[in-house]
Amino acid sequence: MPVYKAPLRDIKFLMRDVLDYFPHYKSLANGADATPDTVDAILEGIATLSEDVLAPLSLSGDKEGCHFNAGEVTTPKGFKEAYKYYVAGGWQGLSFPEEYGGQNLPTSINLIKAEITGSANWSFSMYPGLSMGCINTVLEYGSDLQKKQFMSPLVSGQWSGTMCLTEPQCGTDLAQVKTKAELNQEDGSYRLTGTKIFISAGEHDLTENIIHIVLARIPGAPEGTRGISLFIVPKVNIDSDGKLTDRNSVNCGSIEHKMGIRASSTAVLNFDAATGYLIGKENEGLQAMFTFMNTARIGTALQGICHAEAAFQGSLAYAKERLSMRALSGKKQPESVADAIIWHPDVRKMLLTQRAIAEGGRAMIFHAAKIADKMFNATVAGDTKKQQAYDDELGFYTPILKGFITELGLESANLGMQVFGGHGYIHEHGMEQIARDARIATLYEGTTGIQSLDLLGRKVLMSNKGQSIRDFSKVIFSFAKPHLLSRGPVGSMARKLCKRAVEWNIMTLRIMLGAAKDRELVGSASVDYLMYSGYVMMGYFWALQAEKSAALIESGTGEESNDFYTSKIQTAEFYFDRLLPRASAHKQSAVSSTKSLMQMDNEHFNFL
Amino acid sequence: MPVYKAPLRDIKFLMRDVLDYFPHYKSLANGADATPDTVDAILEGIATLSEDVLAPLSLSGDKEGCHFNAGEVTTPKGFKEAYKYYVAGGWQGLSFPEEYGGQNLPTSINLIKAEITGSANWSFSMYPGLSMGCINTVLEYGSDLQKKQFMSPLVSGQWSGTMCLTEPQCGTDLAQVKTKAELNQEDGSYRLTGTKIFISAGEHDLTENIIHIVLARIPGAPEGTRGISLFIVPKVNIDSDGKLTDRNSVNCGSIEHKMGIRASSTAVLNFDAATGYLIGKENEGLQAMFTFMNTARIGTALQGICHAEAAFQGSLAYAKERLSMRALSGKKQPESVADAIIWHPDVRKMLLTQRAIAEGGRAMIFHAAKIADKMFNATVAGDTKKQQAYDDELGFYTPILKGFITELGLESANLGMQVFGGHGYIHEHGMEQIARDARIATLYEGTTGIQSLDLLGRKVLMSNKGQSIRDFSKVIFSFAKPHLLSRGPVGSMARKLCKRAVEWNIMTLRIMLGAAKDRELVGSASVDYLMYSGYVMMGYFWALQAEKSAALIESGTGEESNDFYTSKIQTAEFYFDRLLPRASAHKQSAVSSTKSLMQMDNEHFNFL
Repeated sequence: MPVYKAPLRDIKFLMRDVLDYFPHYKSLANGADATPDTVDAILEGIATLSEDVLAPLSLSGDKEGCHFNAGEVTTPKGFKEAYKYYVAGGWQGLSFPEEYGGQNLPTSINLIKAEITGSANWSFSMYPGLSMGCINTVLEYGSDLQKKQFMSPLVSGQWSGTMCLTEPQCGTDLAQVKTKAELNQEDGSYRLTGTKIFISAGEHDLTENIIHIVLARIPGAPEGTRGISLFIVPKVNIDSDGKLTDRNSVNCGSIEHKMGIRASSTAVLNFDAATGYLIGKENEGLQAMFTFMNTARIGTALQGICHAEAAFQGSLAYAKERLSMRALSGKKQPESVADAIIWHPDVRKMLLTQRAIAEGGRAMIFHAAKIADKMFNATVAGDTKKQQAYDDELGFYTPILKGFITELGLESANLGMQVFGGHGYIHEHGMEQIARDARIATLYEGTTGIQSLDLLGRKVLMSNKGQSIRDFSKVIFSFAKPHLLSRGPVGSMARKLCKRAVEWNIMTLRIMLGAAKDRELVGSASVDYLMYSGYVMMGYFWALQAEKSAALIESGTGEESNDFYTSKIQTAEFYFDRLLPRASAHKQSAVSSTKSLMQMDNEHFNFL
Repeated sequence: MPVYKAPLRDIKFLMRDVLDYFPHYKSLANGADATPDTVDAILEGIATLSEDVLAPLSLSGDKEGCHFNAGEVTTPKGFKEAYKYYVAGGWQGLSFPEEYGGQNLPTSINLIKAEITGSANWSFSMYPGLSMGCINTVLEYGSDLQKKQFMSPLVSGQWSGTMCLTEPQCGTDLAQVKTKAELNQEDGSYRLTGTKIFISAGEHDLTENIIHIVLARIPGAPEGTRGISLFIVPKVNIDSDGKLTDRNSVNCGSIEHKMGIRASSTAVLNFDAATGYLIGKENEGLQAMFTFMNTARIGTALQGICHAEAAFQGSLAYAKERLSMRALSGKKQPESVADAIIWHPDVRKMLLTQRAIAEGGRAMIFHAAKIADKMFNATVAGDTKKQQAYDDELGFYTPILKGFITELGLESANLGMQVFGGHGYIHEHGMEQIARDARIATLYEGTTGIQSLDLLGRKVLMSNKGQSIRDFSKVIFSFAKPHLLSRGPVGSMARKLCKRAVEWNIMTLRIMLGAAKDRELVGSASVDYLMYSGYVMMGYFWALQAEKSAALIESGTGEESNDFYTSKIQTAEFYFDRLLPRASAHKQSAVSSTKSLMQMDNEHFNFL
């Protein structure tokens, strides 16, 4: 089983040296306490919890899975105790307001926590993770009474929460939601009836109550997405003081047998006239749901780096230890029967790919997390205009992060197995579990295809006619400018990035013009466009890391870290040499005519 | 669970219209019986067995897995009966000589059989599949007595066989093999002691005996690969008449818990002074092992198209049925709540990618299978010179087929899940199993990295200084010549292929010259080189299919098949538009300097 160590060195480098987190924290209403020392202490605490408590339960949790028996779900051995530790440590409330018992720290700290706990044990981290959407919904849309009733136990982790969207007939296309909510005239509550599927943490034994946020239709509501409302449906009813009373009529019908994340319970929930409470405005449920969609999707994008990092650590350790064949350039370990496989160029290539993905993806997400910080504060402050502005800014990054980083996370996880050879396929080594766990990330919270339509169709073309690309290009140009004539590695990266930025804008324009004539062009180009964007964006964040590293070496201020900084520049060079070229293939496919996709008759896809 | 149908239409198209199988069969010593009618009947028979008996056991076999109890392995429910059907149908002996009870048909028919049975149920097909290497070894290297003792029951399928190479400390690097074989002076047999792992079909309940072909060292043998001999070690000893006697001291210590192919038993075998018989010459075991390596690797390459085809069939059916969202170009199914997802361009792109992989890969393998036919016949005829020549020819294709097609098969399997969205992750739909089963294919029988070193290091650079590439380029040029000025789709493909062929040769030359100065260049370029070669070669086989289809439409001889031919041309166009461009990224990475791979200190890959 791979031993997980939280990559604190890299996290601190990004926060301090690359992304200027501490000046950023100082500018936040809830950032005063987030000093370097406090943040360090928090990181150490999360690392300890994750390394010592969560990681050791990952393999056993996968092997055992969740148990379903007559509507009840039992989590694998050790999960209940681990969750108690987690709650006792106050980890659930890290970024929520103090009035609900939270620690009122910036949202980004919560995301960083989620990376570390998620790398250690993704299945476990989903139980507290799913509460986040529920808490955010109550925080923004809940009435005073609802906040009073639900916030504190959710923030402490005493209760957990879910988001109930998907039904058997629909996931992406929520216009098809059928679950109905009928008003109970007596008390103003609703009776919810319907079936929700794929409900993560929908039923489990970690908490005494589970608060479901449910999408449903009120009879007579408009058809489609404009007739969907949001409801709070507690598993156990509560009285006005928040005390638990009787069991609500929402029951777990079964749990899914899944490829991975097997210790995470994925429930089918049957609502049988279950008592629910409208939250937010009638028929504006979907809109409300989308408020925190960006944050939720960044939470899923994290999974890409979690599995990339975990797979990297596992395969790196193995590559140093496993002896096989001799290096083509001559014996490296003459005293051994063979050389360690890390000496072989192709193994190095796999390891460097994993590192480039994990650390490049981390930089991308940490950058976006700063915007999430600002957005969250605007929300809490009730400044809807600012909230919207930050949400729009974040909205450009979200689909790239979610779509691109989870695809690459899957690649890294598969490379982890590949470095292990046949041993990678065996359960006990833990590498195949990482690949199975990682596989869900490109499917849930909107598939890669959906992310790509969101990016190209909504974010880039519809809302701002390519302005986001022009804005990001400006960031690239201003980064590149001082380095364009430089002969070092950063100079070469700066020049390559500028070319890509120009290409990115031209490609965007070309698709924009083409889409006006051919409606299918957006869907035909979108996934390649998303991947292209991801490679260029990751390129920028690698160049940025290389630039800061070169400056730190130059300044001589952190000499003991020079090996680290040098390895950063080397990884960036690897990225530009070996991974960024893939953008060209995506470009070529993205700008292809739609003909080769659309011309085939639906009935002629195969002939058996 | 996806319903599998053998793709007979495509198989027949390749055999008859594209690759001229029947004239080829006529030219073979064992090809007289392989007339179109006979082959059709055989294909129908395999299809029926596979669709009706094997495919229905795939999902249940995966769920149940194999059982291990005190050295005995029980296969999942239904496997024993299915194997009886398989043996009763005479399927095991399809391509082996009549004197051992075989049907003496060309080897390629056996490979085509293996595709169909493998697509239906890969785990099942491994039991009879693993016997092939064992039978081939006995056939070529066995003494008359050994042939008499072992061939008939192996060819009938009454017994099965294995290949025991891997040990805990070594898989790729067989120089490290430790299992020792000590001569028993009394009867000339040997006593084998050691542990072999990852032995597919190493222990099971399908046959009354299992014949292990084991790599081991005789004390005093030279170190490394030149001191390895091959032994026959039966699970149950036999007397000189071939009757079963007592149990040999080879025991199954455990079976592996694997990511996939869970119904295939992967055994740890402990040899405790087990009785074995030297086969072939002392210390020339590894060389003997490599005789049929090419055929074995093509058998594994098949797995790429098996899973590509199975995943394609599953996701295509779902894409036609699942209703979600409306097409961007307007409602396609106005009477439904939404349009079937096959209308969405990105879903079409995934389906066409799967089809292009399955059918493009099939054409590549079927082409190579004709060479395997000739090689096998040369072997049986004892014509070692011809055998070597065909083996050399085949040896160029093998690593490309095994490396490239299994990587793409994995992609197709993953796309199968992706088309299903979240449902793809659930066991009952069968799509995640395909992805798990497919995952082993890039690991066993030599990882993709090993295949790529074989291709670039041994086959292309060392043995013929790029001649194989020049030869294949000639095939491309002569195909392209009549089409270069044509304005139709085949003309465009021909021009693109010629450019690639030139690029391929230049890249090869560049690497050849570079490798003379930098020993690490081969390993640094090899995987990208292999993938590049695969994309170009698959491009040729798609262009060839398009050309033949266009000609058949033109000639009007098979008008009722015009939809099929048209869809072939359309898939080829898709391939050239959307998949072939990936070759450029591989080229760029392949010719990168080794610096970005090699400069990092082994200890600086991460800092925790």
